[in-house]
Amino acid sequence: MGGRTYRLTLCYDGTRYRGWQRLPNCALTVQGKIEEALSGIFGMPIEVSGSGRTDAGVHAKGQVASFHAPELPIGDIVPKLRHLLPEDIGVTDLSYAPERFHARLCAARKTYRYRVWNSVTPDVFERRFRAQLPQPLDVAKMREAAKLLEGKHDFLGFCANKHFKKSSARTLYALTIEQDGNELRFTLTADGFLYHMARILVGTLLEIGGGRRELGTIAEIFEKKNRALAGETAPAKGLCLMEVRYE
Amino acid sequence: MGGRTYRLTLCYDGTRYRGWQRLPNCALTVQGKIEEALSGIFGMPIEVSGSGRTDAGVHAKGQVASFHAPELPIGDIVPKLRHLLPEDIGVTDLSYAPERFHARLCAARKTYRYRVWNSVTPDVFERRFRAQLPQPLDVAKMREAAKLLEGKHDFLGFCANKHFKKSSARTLYALTIEQDGNELRFTLTADGFLYHMARILVGTLLEIGGGRRELGTIAEIFEKKNRALAGETAPAKGLCLMEVRYE
Repeated sequence: MGGRTYRLTLCYDGTRYRGWQRLPNCALTVQGKIEEALSGIFGMPIEVSGSGRTDAGVHAKGQVASFHAPELPIGDIVPKLRHLLPEDIGVTDLSYAPERFHARLCAARKTYRYRVWNSVTPDVFERRFRAQLPQPLDVAKMREAAKLLEGKHDFLGFCANKHFKKSSARTLYALTIEQDGNELRFTLTADGFLYHMARILVGTLLEIGGGRRELGTIAEIFEKKNRALAGETAPAKGLCLMEVRYE
Repeated sequence: MGGRTYRLTLCYDGTRYRGWQRLPNCALTVQGKIEEALSGIFGMPIEVSGSGRTDAGVHAKGQVASFHAPELPIGDIVPKLRHLLPEDIGVTDLSYAPERFHARLCAARKTYRYRVWNSVTPDVFERRFRAQLPQPLDVAKMREAAKLLEGKHDFLGFCANKHFKKSSARTLYALTIEQDGNELRFTLTADGFLYHMARILVGTLLEIGGGRRELGTIAEIFEKKNRALAGETAPAKGLCLMEVRYE
């Protein structure tokens, strides 16, 4: 078909969604909402490809999606799209992309952020975007552990999908931990993330920080590639897809 | 009765509440939720007095309430209260107060903050706590207007209650406007606020900033004491009670 390839940048509060990926039976998904709005604007079914599937309850500040559609002025589409989308999905940017641009296949690296509220006092305003953990955490020890996770590894032991067939080698370019008052921010940048990988990495670090796990277990998880040896999956609501980079 | 007077400091996301004040027929109110939790802890009906009634949809970071109840250790009450309260109401502090302390009657000054998101691009994460206004605003002009509002005045023209019987003179100690990227923050400190006063003050300033109202109308509103001459009531969700001070 003729038309154009579009690149769409989105933010969303994932609280009430079953995740990014469209599901049957009208389940509430971010992809579903966007396709519905775009199909209305273009008057034909539009399918969008996200850079990746965020899980139920995970947020995004910089999710990227691509789609093919007839050529319409960008300045006409954006206000309509903003009008049609619910208030928890925001359009950050829309542009024409090279014809063969594909948000998932062309993604070179992604950055996720995980926010922990490390206090007994709840913070009602950010409660949807941070996991609360009242126990004291040894941040220096978590930073040591983060160093062991960085680099190119087979991350199968940090993947919740047991039947993962393709290569599970990924390069974790950086895993940093910032402390800002009672908030801890884990920032993870990699060339790709396996299913639940970001949340299992954070969950494992939190167990180390809480003194419930030894540093040495990390080498063991890498070696045995057994997800059962890694930490608990950290709650979805603390995670946010911050940025997707393309070459 | 014996027992103690307690001073409770609270934060809440007011989005789903009909406001602070308890209402009949089980309407969802912040006061109702707190009284229910405290009554459960003390095993008897407990009535709390808030420093003031926040409207439906208005938030608080530092609401203060007082109540009388039997003496129990603070360290026993707080965890129970946090456990019983919903996740959008948080307990910041609880302490014993002088016997005659009353959160409303003893309040000396209050600070409210009003947040405006001045952009066409929605911000999904803060959408519950900011009013969105895409039109360009003249901040310097709003600051000029704010200076005219500061000081001791009869604020009846900025009060939504027509049948207000008591003195409507209040001292607005400060009304400042900060600009932080696309966010505008109005901070209002006064010895007291009339019904809807904070939101009508902000609404009036926004009309001045948007070029839809002249500076001169402020003197007229003070003189004629007619609420119809003032600006629209700004949306509840942008308002937050930040602090209540006692002598």
